[in-house]
Amino acid sequence: MHAEIIAVGSELLLGQIVNTNAQFMSKVLADMGINVFFHTVVGDNAARLKAAIEIAENRADMIIFSGGLGPTKDDLTKETIAAHLNRKLITDVRAMESIEAYFNRVGRTMSENNRKQALVIEGSEVLPNDHGMAPGMIIPVKNHIYMLFPGPPKEMEPMFLTYARPSIMNKLQVQEKIISRVLRFFGIGESQLETEIDDLIVGQTNPTIAPLAGDGEVTLRITAKHQSEGAAKELIDYTERLILNRVGEYFYGYDETSLMSELSKLLKEKQLTIAAAESLTGGMFEKELTSIPGAGSLLMGGVVCYHPKVKQNVLHVKEETIAQHGVVSAECAKELAENVASLMHADIGISFTGVAGPEELEGKPAGTVFIGIKIKDQPTKVEELKLGGNRTSIRIRTVQHGCNYLLKSI
Amino acid sequence: MHAEIIAVGSELLLGQIVNTNAQFMSKVLADMGINVFFHTVVGDNAARLKAAIEIAENRADMIIFSGGLGPTKDDLTKETIAAHLNRKLITDVRAMESIEAYFNRVGRTMSENNRKQALVIEGSEVLPNDHGMAPGMIIPVKNHIYMLFPGPPKEMEPMFLTYARPSIMNKLQVQEKIISRVLRFFGIGESQLETEIDDLIVGQTNPTIAPLAGDGEVTLRITAKHQSEGAAKELIDYTERLILNRVGEYFYGYDETSLMSELSKLLKEKQLTIAAAESLTGGMFEKELTSIPGAGSLLMGGVVCYHPKVKQNVLHVKEETIAQHGVVSAECAKELAENVASLMHADIGISFTGVAGPEELEGKPAGTVFIGIKIKDQPTKVEELKLGGNRTSIRIRTVQHGCNYLLKSI
Repeated sequence: MHAEIIAVGSELLLGQIVNTNAQFMSKVLADMGINVFFHTVVGDNAARLKAAIEIAENRADMIIFSGGLGPTKDDLTKETIAAHLNRKLITDVRAMESIEAYFNRVGRTMSENNRKQALVIEGSEVLPNDHGMAPGMIIPVKNHIYMLFPGPPKEMEPMFLTYARPSIMNKLQVQEKIISRVLRFFGIGESQLETEIDDLIVGQTNPTIAPLAGDGEVTLRITAKHQSEGAAKELIDYTERLILNRVGEYFYGYDETSLMSELSKLLKEKQLTIAAAESLTGGMFEKELTSIPGAGSLLMGGVVCYHPKVKQNVLHVKEETIAQHGVVSAECAKELAENVASLMHADIGISFTGVAGPEELEGKPAGTVFIGIKIKDQPTKVEELKLGGNRTSIRIRTVQHGCNYLLKSI
Repeated sequence: MHAEIIAVGSELLLGQIVNTNAQFMSKVLADMGINVFFHTVVGDNAARLKAAIEIAENRADMIIFSGGLGPTKDDLTKETIAAHLNRKLITDVRAMESIEAYFNRVGRTMSENNRKQALVIEGSEVLPNDHGMAPGMIIPVKNHIYMLFPGPPKEMEPMFLTYARPSIMNKLQVQEKIISRVLRFFGIGESQLETEIDDLIVGQTNPTIAPLAGDGEVTLRITAKHQSEGAAKELIDYTERLILNRVGEYFYGYDETSLMSELSKLLKEKQLTIAAAESLTGGMFEKELTSIPGAGSLLMGGVVCYHPKVKQNVLHVKEETIAQHGVVSAECAKELAENVASLMHADIGISFTGVAGPEELEGKPAGTVFIGIKIKDQPTKVEELKLGGNRTSIRIRTVQHGCNYLLKSI
């Protein structure tokens, strides 16, 4: 079974957006053992879309479309495919109801062009859209399976996982189980990690080990195939042990987690509350923590102390500390962590002060960062970092280091 | 002149990385007035790459490749193209020197496979790689121009801008100027906006008007062609006036801006300082504001008042306000905005309190949000929102509405 992904949208060809849909679908299909041999992007143009479909039919069994299901005149994916397959478009009653319900809920009048979104190709398996209006479709025709998804990732991704994946698995009657596990590492570079386990990567065929560098972290995906799920898991367990024997000190979690999710889990488990004083990160640590549902029981709150006066007046950093050491200093980080914990009545106080750049501050270059950590009655610790990169990556790395530092300290 | 971009790499088809190269190139080409009609992604496989080249030759004049120029066995882009064009690979002396110099500089021994990177297709214009080893190539053959670039974005992007773009401009002797302007709107849906200006979109060929829905906002790209740049601008100005006559109340800015950038500009212009009290947004407003360099002169700081006690103890919301109206209330938003402004000695106080979900709070459903705004001595205003979507999008929309509300209020 070979698949091709066709993303439809002139905004992709103009470079206004990046084709994350092809990446997402490819990843899910790879995990299902389906080979993707081509991605195509084509604009909102019926003739060129039709040409792309004909090419795909010659080189793939499964043709997956994203985009062009919306209400506007540009949106012509299903119209073009219907014409190509010589099928009618019919109104899907359930989709129409859910579109009407949406407009009722938000209290807006439905403009006429929204009705178009409830049209589906005759004979489709209709995939509900739980996060938007246009439904998806699966249409098996002779030797091909055509699948249509809306373009917005927040609609396509849950639809793909919830409705399309089980339906495909079912159609293909996948026998061999393919299981993956992702190990996540922080504080080690991709090339160093790869060097440490090079012989394992080269030597293995089942499981395979695939390294990938992400934003400040490195992951290893271990994938095993076996007719028995249990046996596949055992293969993965064994390889994981080999890997962690060598680089376990940098390991922090499995699969779709993050340093912040691990921190949130750990805080919940230990029933600890936290407060943050954020200068250069400007609220990013707390924003990330509160993006996880249920953060209310962990995070008391915090102070974004961007201006030196706020450090002094609200967080009571001593005037002489700032005069003697500056705000970019271990001393300032220490007082910020201690004082925010006591101000917010939290078990843990964490502080971030430093230079996000591009300009230097107090004679210190961009990337100079101090993180203070106060945990209950333990003596306050301060970590100094020298980070590279631009303003955005310095801020992201600072938050990641703060999480990692807490994970190792609690 | 029509272009097709072919990205080569199995890691793209496995979903391990996203094809940002196609986006980058498309944007630069669009600005140069070159139409991109297709993107293709193909794996590290000579036969499939050759097939993709043949398809592209039938539908594009300019075929641009990225990836597959590295030292390993997988890397076969230039080998495949050379064979297809019936040309030899020859060592480029300058590229070889720069590879040797690189290994000398980092003090590592050059492994033999690195010599492969200095090979170029005979008759190429060689593009130096200032950030890596593999050079790029431009090869005009009969009716086609073939262009090869390395895959890593940090090598490809500067090479494209520094060496390829001037060479293409020169080859094409671009006469007609193509100018675009993006208008950004907030508070109106894509389909409503399109309904309002439907006759303009359908009727226009020069300029063209292309709508695009982004994250909570809608943009219109107006593109005009003319031999005189001034005349192209006038065409755009005229169309812009037609559009803004109808939907001007939702317009907030031009081109690559954002609500937060516009707010930051406005605050700087009016020399106003700001402070924020963030409950459901958990620091997101301040994080976004401080992502813009120079925010230090605008943002005094703020309090992330996630826990009700922090609202009371740190931001002095009256106990009876919370007892009577709850924290998800206009009354609480009002006090938060007023008190954070006075605590931080800021000209403006803004507050965000509400239900991010997924659970309801105080009997109010997810998406119930109150934004308080206190500007100097003016009476405090509170806006109530009922937002749809999940936790993440509720938080993002809340911050956007806050920015928009400030933009209209200051």
